[in-house]
Parts: sequence; C-alpha cells; structure tokens
Amino acid sequence: MARTASLSGFPEWLPEERLVELHVLDTLRRVFELHGFSSIETRAVETVGQLLRKGEIDKEVYGLSRLQDDDGATATNAESAASHKGDPHALALHFDLTVPFARYVVENAGYLAFPFRRYQIQKVWRGERPQEGRAREFTQADIDIVGDGELPFRYDVEIALVIAEALSALPIPDFLLRINNRKLAEGFYNGIGLTDTAGVLRSIDKLEKIGPARVAELLKSELGATEEQAQSALKLASIRTQDTTFVAQVRDLGVSNGLLEEGLTELEQVIAAAVQRAPGKVVADLSIARGLDYYTGTVVETVLVGHEQLGSICSGGRYDALASKGNRKFPGVGLSIGVTRLVSRILSQDLARATRSVPTAVLVALNSDDSWGAAQDVAAELRSRGISTEVAAKAEKFGKQIKFADRRGIPFVWFTDDDGKHQVKDIRSGEQVDADPATWAPAAEDLHVRVLKA
Amino acid sequence: MARTASLSGFPEWLPEERLVELHVLDTLRRVFELHGFSSIETRAVETVGQLLRKGEIDKEVYGLSRLQDDDGATATNAESAASHKGDPHALALHFDLTVPFARYVVENAGYLAFPFRRYQIQKVWRGERPQEGRAREFTQADIDIVGDGELPFRYDVEIALVIAEALSALPIPDFLLRINNRKLAEGFYNGIGLTDTAGVLRSIDKLEKIGPARVAELLKSELGATEEQAQSALKLASIRTQDTTFVAQVRDLGVSNGLLEEGLTELEQVIAAAVQRAPGKVVADLSIARGLDYYTGTVVETVLVGHEQLGSICSGGRYDALASKGNRKFPGVGLSIGVTRLVSRILSQDLARATRSVPTAVLVALNSDDSWGAAQDVAAELRSRGISTEVAAKAEKFGKQIKFADRRGIPFVWFTDDDGKHQVKDIRSGEQVDADPATWAPAAEDLHVRVLKA
Repeated sequence: MARTASLSGFPEWLPEERLVELHVLDTLRRVFELHGFSSIETRAVETVGQLLRKGEIDKEVYGLSRLQDDDGATATNAESAASHKGDPHALALHFDLTVPFARYVVENAGYLAFPFRRYQIQKVWRGERPQEGRAREFTQADIDIVGDGELPFRYDVEIALVIAEALSALPIPDFLLRINNRKLAEGFYNGIGLTDTAGVLRSIDKLEKIGPARVAELLKSELGATEEQAQSALKLASIRTQDTTFVAQVRDLGVSNGLLEEGLTELEQVIAAAVQRAPGKVVADLSIARGLDYYTGTVVETVLVGHEQLGSICSGGRYDALASKGNRKFPGVGLSIGVTRLVSRILSQDLARATRSVPTAVLVALNSDDSWGAAQDVAAELRSRGISTEVAAKAEKFGKQIKFADRRGIPFVWFTDDDGKHQVKDIRSGEQVDADPATWAPAAEDLHVRVLKA
Repeated sequence: MARTASLSGFPEWLPEERLVELHVLDTLRRVFELHGFSSIETRAVETVGQLLRKGEIDKEVYGLSRLQDDDGATATNAESAASHKGDPHALALHFDLTVPFARYVVENAGYLAFPFRRYQIQKVWRGERPQEGRAREFTQADIDIVGDGELPFRYDVEIALVIAEALSALPIPDFLLRINNRKLAEGFYNGIGLTDTAGVLRSIDKLEKIGPARVAELLKSELGATEEQAQSALKLASIRTQDTTFVAQVRDLGVSNGLLEEGLTELEQVIAAAVQRAPGKVVADLSIARGLDYYTGTVVETVLVGHEQLGSICSGGRYDALASKGNRKFPGVGLSIGVTRLVSRILSQDLARATRSVPTAVLVALNSDDSWGAAQDVAAELRSRGISTEVAAKAEKFGKQIKFADRRGIPFVWFTDDDGKHQVKDIRSGEQVDADPATWAPAAEDLHVRVLKA
C-alpha cells in the first residue's frame, strides 16, 4: 500500500481493501453466531465518570464538546473547557468495548438472560501517538460471557476455543494464544513474600520491552524485592509450555499458596482443552500479565507467528468485578480481536486479496440509448437470482463499454441485440456465449467476491 | 419499548431489538451489492475546516479534544478550547456521510474507477436537542454514484429505483419518495423575477411547518416578493402528481425559462421510469426543497405512509459541485436512509419482530460434568453444518437445563445419554426424537433467526 492516511492514525480503505475487511468481519460474525453470541452495539460515547470509574486509565481519551451551544451561538472558551474536565457527566469517546459493555449489562440486567453471551464489533478511539499497528480509530471485535452472581469457570475454556476457531477461519498466518492466570501469578508472588502483586504484574508486563535484567532492577528498586524474590518472579515468568507440563514446572519452584493452586488448576483446564480442541494454537505462557487492572483470573494475549512485533492481535481475560449493581455482581470473561491491526497487516503484506474489486458480476451493455429499460429488465432478472448486476448508463461503442467493465473489475458483459437475442461475454477469456436472463449464472467462484489467502 | 436510553439521544438496543436492526442493515447491504455498489467506510472524524467548507452548516457538530496531552498531563483550559475553535485542523465528528464521502473521493480519485458507486453504512453524530425521530447518534445508510467530470442524468433515475427496491425489502409500512428538481424550482423563480432562489427555497422548505400563508408573508417580507410572485411560487409548490402530468400543470402556470425546462425534462424522466418500475412508490412533489445548499438538480425526501410526522426517512439528491480537485469536478447523486429513525419506529410500534431472541438454535445439555467434551463434539458437528449451537456449562437437572434454553429463547435441547444415544427436543412443542449429530437439522424456518413483519 503506497497510500497513507490523510489524517495520521485514522486509516481508511479503498473499496477492494474494504472487501478484505468485510470478509474478516463477516467471518467473525459467522463464527460468533454459530456459538450463540448475540450482537449488540453500545453508543460511541460514555460519560467521563464512567470511563474513569476504575481509577486511572492508561488510555488517551477523546473528550467531546459541542461547537455550538443550544442557542446556536459558539460556546465560550470556559464552557468548552468545562465540558471536559472536572465534570463526570461530560462525554468522551469509548476507548474499548469492555467498559461500555459492563455499563450496558448493569443498565439492562432486567432484560437480559444470564449467562449473557454477546459479540460486539465497533470502532474505538484512543488519542495515542500513531505507529505501526496502533491507530487512533480502530475496529475491535469482542466476545464476552457475563454471569449474574457467578459464572462457571468452564466459560473461560470455551471462550478461548471460540476465539481460536474464529482466528483460524481468517486469512491470516499462524497465531498463538498465550494464556496465563492472574490467580496463579498473584498467589505465587504472595507465596514468595511480594505483596504488591499489581506492582509486580506491571513490572513483569515490561519483560518483552526491557528484558529480565531491568525487570529485576525494577522489582528491587520500586517494590523492595530481594534478589532472590526477583529471580523467583522471573523464573515463573520464563515458563512456557504447549501442554500442561507447566504445572510441574511451577511446583518445582517450591512455592506453596492457596490462590496459586487455584490458578494452576484453572490454567491447566484451559490448556488441557486446547491441546485437544485447538492443537498448536495455544500455549501456557506465564510471562503474560496484561496492563489493565480489572482482570482477576485467565489472561490472554495473541501473537501472529512471524509478526510478533505487531503486538497482540487478541487480548482479554476473566474479570470478576468489572460490573456490579448494588450487591449484585456480574463476573465475565471476554476476548477482543484487534480487527484494524489484523486488516492493516493483511493489506500491507498482501497476505490476502479479493478476487475482484467490486461486488458486480455482470455489466449489461446498452445497444442504443433507448434500450436502457430493456437492459434494466435483464438486470432485474439476474439480480432476482442473486447475481450482482449493473446497467451501462450510455450506449457507447461496445469496445468502450467492455473497457468500462474491465476498468471496474466486472468479469461479465451482457449484450442484447435488436432482435432480443442475448449473449454474455467473459471479458477475461473473451469467450462469448448465448444466454437466457432467466437461467444463466456465472460459475460459482464468480458469483460473489471471495477473499483468498495469498 | 418501556426502556429509555440512559443518555438522552443515544439509543441502544437490546439483543432482540438489535436483531431487527441487523436485519435492516443486512437487507440494505444485499440490495446495494446486487446493484454493484461497493462498501466503504470513512473515519468518524473530519477536520472542522472540512466540515465547514461549504460555509455555514445547520447541523450541531461535536468537537473533539484529548483529555490528556502527549505528556500524559491534563490539557490546560486554553489548549482544550483552542483545539475546537479558530483552528480548521481541529477534529470533529462527522454529521453526515456525504461530506466525508466527497473528501474521500477527492483524496483517492487516482485509485477509483468512475463512475464510482459506493454504499456506506455508519454512525453519524449531531448535538441537536433529541426528540422523537431525532437522535444525537444515529446510523445512516447512503448510496452515491460519483462521476469524474460528468455524470449522466440516468444515474438520478437509477438511484431512485435502487432506493425504492431497498426500502421495499424492509419490514416497514408503505413509503413514498417525494421527488423534485432544483433546476425546475430555481428556473421557475427566476422566470417570475425572484432572483434569490436559495432564499425562496429556504422559505418553501418551511411549508409543512408553518403553512402557505406564513410562507407567503416570508417571501414578501424577507425576499421582497410581490403578492403575485408569492402566490405563483406557492402554486408551483402545491403541484403533486403520481405521474408525469405535473409537466402540463407547471406549463399551465405560464412561466418560461431555460433552466425550468431542463428541470422539467429531468424530473419527467425520473417519474416516468418510476411509474413503470416502482409503481405507487414515487411522486413528483414540487414542494420539496431540502435545506442543505449543495443540491443542484434532483432532490428527494421520503415519508412512511401513516407515519408522516416522523419526518423524512430517506433524503438526498444530485450535487454537481460538492467535490472538486483543482479544475477536476466530481458530480454525484446520492440518497441517505435514516436507519436509526426507521428501526426506532419499527421497535416502538412493534412493526416487525425477530422469531427468537438469540442466534442459537440448539443447546446441548450435559448428562454429567464429565460429558462437556462429548457435548462439544456434538456442538462442533452441528455448527459445521451451519446450526448455531451452545453447550451447557453445568450438568444441572435436565429440567433446569431446558428452563435455561427457554429463558434464552433457544428452541431445541440436545440430549446424549450414557450409552451415546442422541435425542433432540423441541421445547416449544415438547416433541422429542432420536437424532444423529451428523445429519439432524432443524426445520428451515428455525435454522436462523428471521425478522417478520407484524
């Protein structure tokens, strides 16, 4: 792709690129619905209070204010600024789909059947500095399952399998879900005497960026860990197995803690099911921490094999306390696919491509300017059988009309002569045959645009 | 619908309501693609300069500013305000899809094949006072055809027919496209000596709100029209025919003007084609003005019959000068469907409904907690044949599992006994039959959720 976005961080696709994105979105929707996930959308805006509810956020948020006030006059500086700042009712664009979903569940709890499973495919906005794989506006595709009061752990297993199936259906390279469990990590840290487990997780989260030596420094300088504690935490984070042998490796570290045991059992269940049902797609990776605070058990990040520097293309986990209404708690588990990140990579590296650039299969040529009505009749007949068809607007020379189809990427041109005899030409092969608008159809592979892996 | 949006003007649907919206969106997409329209999306934000390019706009725009600056500190009042005001590079949310589309065409002209036909289904935002049929965030579905230098008039006819076909495919009451032509109106006003044609159009646009007497007053007081001129303009606006007889009615008014003749011929073509191809769906209505300034020929508004007070559900027209790049002009014609307005009405008046509330057709019940793996095998087999299937998470009593399915709206429950014998129960009828996961399928009408007119 030679083109760059006219506004940095706000990618826009050409029509043939959009076909690739549509294919990705349609595929995800199909898999999610096959697994019984309902579609919902939430509004693009939340109140600032809602977005900040979980305390400090590490996302850059876009605040909203109206350029004109209710009387049509332009807002004063003071008003404009006030609408963003202290006021928790001020509006801002959502930066993910999890926080809005939690609010939606609480607001609509009386109308939902729990465990409630939904998918949500929408744009989100983050005012961060744009870079490769990081846009300011991008599409996420989330699935979550939320319970009322409790949510069986089995859903953690299921949701990982659904995502593995969904990603497998996309025209992308091999991927690997890297899964860890917060209980396991926090229990372990507690077991070795490091009580600021959130702090340890934040340091461990930097492992890939700054390396083990500097993480050890951080643990010692910022969290008061001893050299032994730091090395122990790093040893845990170095464990990575494609099967359930990580359990023995953790036990070999000789730390004993109830929460650790709980986490080990949970992660073991996820990995055991994945070995069977998504072989080669999942790994227990005890370095995975996830920055955000609301995760309480399973945590997941996903890499594209050979494209690791792109960052995680699918992340999420278990959150037991994100949503609540009085005493009523709504624990959930969910994963979020970075659609724009994936599609950008597919396009920039030409990993997949649409078989043609337009939905149209047939252009009905005009014999004379008066034949437009008859041409529309032919087109209507083809469309009634699901064949995408356009009609030429002007009775130019046939050569010109064929060239027009070629330029638009339309594979077939339809001709009707003055005697009402129909013929259709495959402009790729040049083959031209008699055809009946009531029965002719293109070959199955030409009926719709398809997106094929390169 | 008893529920109200938790944020006024920002509607959100329950899962079963979203199914109705999805059906509307899918139907529109199908019809648009059958007619060869390509999907595109533009970013949600434009620069303020771009949005204001056409001079004063009558839409309330939401400006954006980042809550934190690049260093993570909160922006000062001055910065926050500056980002909205004089600066034409400041960002704001788009208020329609036409202005962003015009920008997209100009930016990507080198990559598009003209005439370029696209559909675009996205949210737009307007900070207006919310009221029935008017939200602050809503979805529009637009189709446009844009030419390079010139665009044959025939596309005006085509686009009206495509929209009539698309609306006919929706689960909505009868609708009526009310079509006029700016050339006709402006030529007429010029012909009777009223030269501020934009001013006359603005007054005529108020006809339905304030009535002919007050419009006549406006024409006289604000535009200096004589009583005769005002009555003449009102007579034109009163013409409304289902066929091409409006031409004779206009000629009877005895005004002669070249632009008027051009407009008459154009509108005649649209109506003549519609009489044949969309009978009863289109009317020549010479009172239609459209507020926005960029229309130059055909103008369209659409009412739902019996729901006229809802306002136009589909509007647009011909614009010859919206987009240009140096000397290169990109004339276009397009129509925009107010999806949220339509869906709100369908839901609030129960005009259509989903056959069930979830995509799921089958719940695979658990015999014992150990049978989860075997149940997943059954589910995978059903899904491989396109049957949406969930697996129970806990081996509760069968009665409880059936109740769970019932509560979620899932019509079938699958049982596998300890000997591996399969049965499936239609929980609506209670009928339970032997079934093979490799071959069983629900009746065609139960395979997918359908949305039916009430």
